[in-house]
Amino acid sequence: MIKIDFSAELKIENKRIVSRAISIVEYGNADSVELLTSIYSKTGNAYRIGITGPPGAGKSTLTNQLTKYYRGLGKSVAIIAVDPTSPFTGGALLGDRVRMSEIGSDSGVFIRSMATRGSLGGLSKKTIDAADVLDAAGFDIILFETVGVGQSELDIARTADTTLVVLVPESGDSIQAMKAGLMEIADLFIMNKSDRPGSDTAITSIQTILNFRPHDETSWLPYIIKSVASENIGIKEIIESIDKHKNYLEVGGLLQKKREHNSKIRIKEIVEAQIKAELWTSERESSLSESLESVVLGKLSPYTLAEDLINHYKNENGSELS
Amino acid sequence: MIKIDFSAELKIENKRIVSRAISIVEYGNADSVELLTSIYSKTGNAYRIGITGPPGAGKSTLTNQLTKYYRGLGKSVAIIAVDPTSPFTGGALLGDRVRMSEIGSDSGVFIRSMATRGSLGGLSKKTIDAADVLDAAGFDIILFETVGVGQSELDIARTADTTLVVLVPESGDSIQAMKAGLMEIADLFIMNKSDRPGSDTAITSIQTILNFRPHDETSWLPYIIKSVASENIGIKEIIESIDKHKNYLEVGGLLQKKREHNSKIRIKEIVEAQIKAELWTSERESSLSESLESVVLGKLSPYTLAEDLINHYKNENGSELS
Repeated sequence: MIKIDFSAELKIENKRIVSRAISIVEYGNADSVELLTSIYSKTGNAYRIGITGPPGAGKSTLTNQLTKYYRGLGKSVAIIAVDPTSPFTGGALLGDRVRMSEIGSDSGVFIRSMATRGSLGGLSKKTIDAADVLDAAGFDIILFETVGVGQSELDIARTADTTLVVLVPESGDSIQAMKAGLMEIADLFIMNKSDRPGSDTAITSIQTILNFRPHDETSWLPYIIKSVASENIGIKEIIESIDKHKNYLEVGGLLQKKREHNSKIRIKEIVEAQIKAELWTSERESSLSESLESVVLGKLSPYTLAEDLINHYKNENGSELS
Repeated sequence: MIKIDFSAELKIENKRIVSRAISIVEYGNADSVELLTSIYSKTGNAYRIGITGPPGAGKSTLTNQLTKYYRGLGKSVAIIAVDPTSPFTGGALLGDRVRMSEIGSDSGVFIRSMATRGSLGGLSKKTIDAADVLDAAGFDIILFETVGVGQSELDIARTADTTLVVLVPESGDSIQAMKAGLMEIADLFIMNKSDRPGSDTAITSIQTILNFRPHDETSWLPYIIKSVASENIGIKEIIESIDKHKNYLEVGGLLQKKREHNSKIRIKEIVEAQIKAELWTSERESSLSESLESVVLGKLSPYTLAEDLINHYKNENGSELS
């Protein structure tokens, strides 16, 4: 197999190379670390936008429209769609992958679905790794589209430079969003399907909730923008608001700060994943499994067993190094 | 301060001691490990029931009605309500804590709210620790009430012996539930507010989705039960179905297996939490923070920095042991 020099060949026009690189980071072994390290100095130029919200809010349609608008401005766009797949159907729901056909043939657009299936917490790590690949390849805009119903999905949206929370006017939606932690991460609210009844009431309730957010005169006050993505209404306003938020971050040096904060979370995740992999060797997995019967019968406390496993791991490291 | 002998004094009638013990495990320090180890041999007798579903499905009302029914059968009941609190309002939404007043004065009932706020993944660990306290105290039934919108909430519901997923007839609810991973963890579906239109259609769609679940003739096929919890309709049927599921688990030796599986997840979580605490000392936290500027500027790859931190941690363990 010929080894690809990703640091030289990773470019927007080499879509196969880009795809290949993302598959490598998705797989996540030593090759992935080597690749990401070799391309890392080329990252930092793309602007990253997170698009999240409850199922059915119209995030995909909105993502498509934003992509088309950015293309009209001459910007290249990469989309990472985080697909909530079910462990037993094994596929994306509602043809999520198919619906992108309209923009998928444009050479300045790259679309990649990443499945939540089986990732168990490693998802945001892989998504950010993939974004680094796309950033290094030279895409101007990276859109992360995630369903805002789980911690990993929120984590992904949060790592963006600007995070859009998409809601619909249905009553109770803003309360649900609040419960799910969406209110805290929004830089912009999009009230999509705003031609439906209840749109103004919903906006008022978001504003009320926002007033509880601690803020002073220097804080960013999230805009609330009405849209009907399926009819291309409100798209220009959304793009302009993203620009305003970007400008706000850049002028105050906040973009660097925000990215530092996100990098910190990311590096911790990398460290912890690596240590977990070394911790749960098949030997220790077996030793744990063999003791479970005693635990359930109340003969051995989970905390006692946990301590034994920790000591075993540490002794191994100690003897490795001595 | 007088040290309480929890292994002797933890009893249903000593509610203050029970509360105190839960506060200790919620705090989660060395005292917590000592307490849990000392009471562990008394656990394993309570039957644990998870109640989850989307916001607004009526979980709290249902929890109250199930509690009253169990009390009528002479069983003691402990409720752990996992409260999704918002980081910026700091309190439970919609008076979750207040609504329990009807059953809270019964001496055979114990209610505890645990906040998701700030727990960052440690929530299911603390909830299960609290359940062990209640189990050791002698409660017959432990009800975990959680909003099914996040991974930790699902984790909690999953650790129960029987998991109820509460839905309402509103269109799209079952699809949402599927996306959120609720379909996979349900032993029983409760179609609550089933006097509303669309109830039968919703049940049909759940049945359709269930047919995709891999199953053979020995599998448990989840029941779908209609209820109107606010009018006490369907409660008896739910309790009977829980008993049938319990019987199914016990006859096949599956209860032991399920609890072993849950213990495994729990012990891994304990081990990982302990190692994380030792890993992120203030020294390594500072060292990480100081390098973030270089990371964001593209001068230092996150993976290189992560490797440095891992080596530093391992060297420390090595030198501790030698």
